[in-house]
Amino acid sequence: MPKQVDHDQRRTEIATAAWQLIAEHGVDAATMRAISDSMGMANGALKHYFPNKNAIIRTAFTRIFDNTNARISARLGDATGLDGLRIFCQEVMPAEEVTKLEARVVLPFWQRALADADLESVYRGAMDVWRKQIRKFLRAGRAAGTIRTPVSDKVIVEQLLAILNGVQTLALLTPETTTPRLQRQMIDVFLNGLTENPAG
Amino acid sequence: MPKQVDHDQRRTEIATAAWQLIAEHGVDAATMRAISDSMGMANGALKHYFPNKNAIIRTAFTRIFDNTNARISARLGDATGLDGLRIFCQEVMPAEEVTKLEARVVLPFWQRALADADLESVYRGAMDVWRKQIRKFLRAGRAAGTIRTPVSDKVIVEQLLAILNGVQTLALLTPETTTPRLQRQMIDVFLNGLTENPAG
Repeated sequence: MPKQVDHDQRRTEIATAAWQLIAEHGVDAATMRAISDSMGMANGALKHYFPNKNAIIRTAFTRIFDNTNARISARLGDATGLDGLRIFCQEVMPAEEVTKLEARVVLPFWQRALADADLESVYRGAMDVWRKQIRKFLRAGRAAGTIRTPVSDKVIVEQLLAILNGVQTLALLTPETTTPRLQRQMIDVFLNGLTENPAG
Repeated sequence: MPKQVDHDQRRTEIATAAWQLIAEHGVDAATMRAISDSMGMANGALKHYFPNKNAIIRTAFTRIFDNTNARISARLGDATGLDGLRIFCQEVMPAEEVTKLEARVVLPFWQRALADADLESVYRGAMDVWRKQIRKFLRAGRAAGTIRTPVSDKVIVEQLLAILNGVQTLALLTPETTTPRLQRQMIDVFLNGLTENPAG
């Protein structure tokens, strides 16, 4: 079915172009016209693939989420527990060029998800995937005896997810303070805390 | 100078109207026209006070930031150290109606700050005020012997700030998981961790 393949390929190209426009110039500058212009296609043709901007932003976010998870999988190998958590965090936090660009799409995505039930459900699904992934690492670390904290997994998962969401904002908007080095320290200290059990 | 007073009063009223429109209907619905309509004023008159939407959003964010800090001050009394930190966090995290409404303005503010140097500098200033405030509490807690962690204040400040930023997104977009109860547990566990020194 070559036609379907072309169609999917085109959608991917458009999502990539939109992703780059948003990251470089902001979500407001990435109008439907700017996206179609950057693709050298007619505005009407773009609407054939994506009826509106939220549809594009949904695809751009999904693409970024998939890319992040693919990088995590590729690096994980047999790593799990604390090592798995560290790799996971490193591929999410905006300490490198690719993750910084991703964060520039994630912030506008949040804002739009506030007013769009479809985008909100995409975000909810993504966070649930990550909650499960983090819990899996925590269980493995507890089984291996490297994670010894008495704090419940539920609270740890949500703290880590909040740090990983919050550091997107801080790293983009206060980069002179929230440096890559400080981001790594924040994660290292957090993970180190999981190894400790004050009760002995 | 009654004229200046009227002018300031009007600016405050407009910022409040904008704040509520954004919180209730989203930043895209809060157009200059919607704001002037909700005030029963002409669009041209609105522009006399605020030349564009970013100017309104700047004022709305500043107002929210000031309100939050005023609530913190009012509750603090003589509290400092861990008690001070707890009050500070409780007035920032979106676990109650007022803080949830505030978060609905904060998320669009972040997104716009990505593409506007003036808004970015407002956010940078706000975070620096909070970093100093958190550091002050940490120093007092260490002096009182209640904060015993060997982790540096710099890392603790940034972790807490990331949690407080990240929980805005999580509480608004995944409220069924990131409940007020879980938010409080996240903060309690974090603060409790500061009291511990594994080295004894």
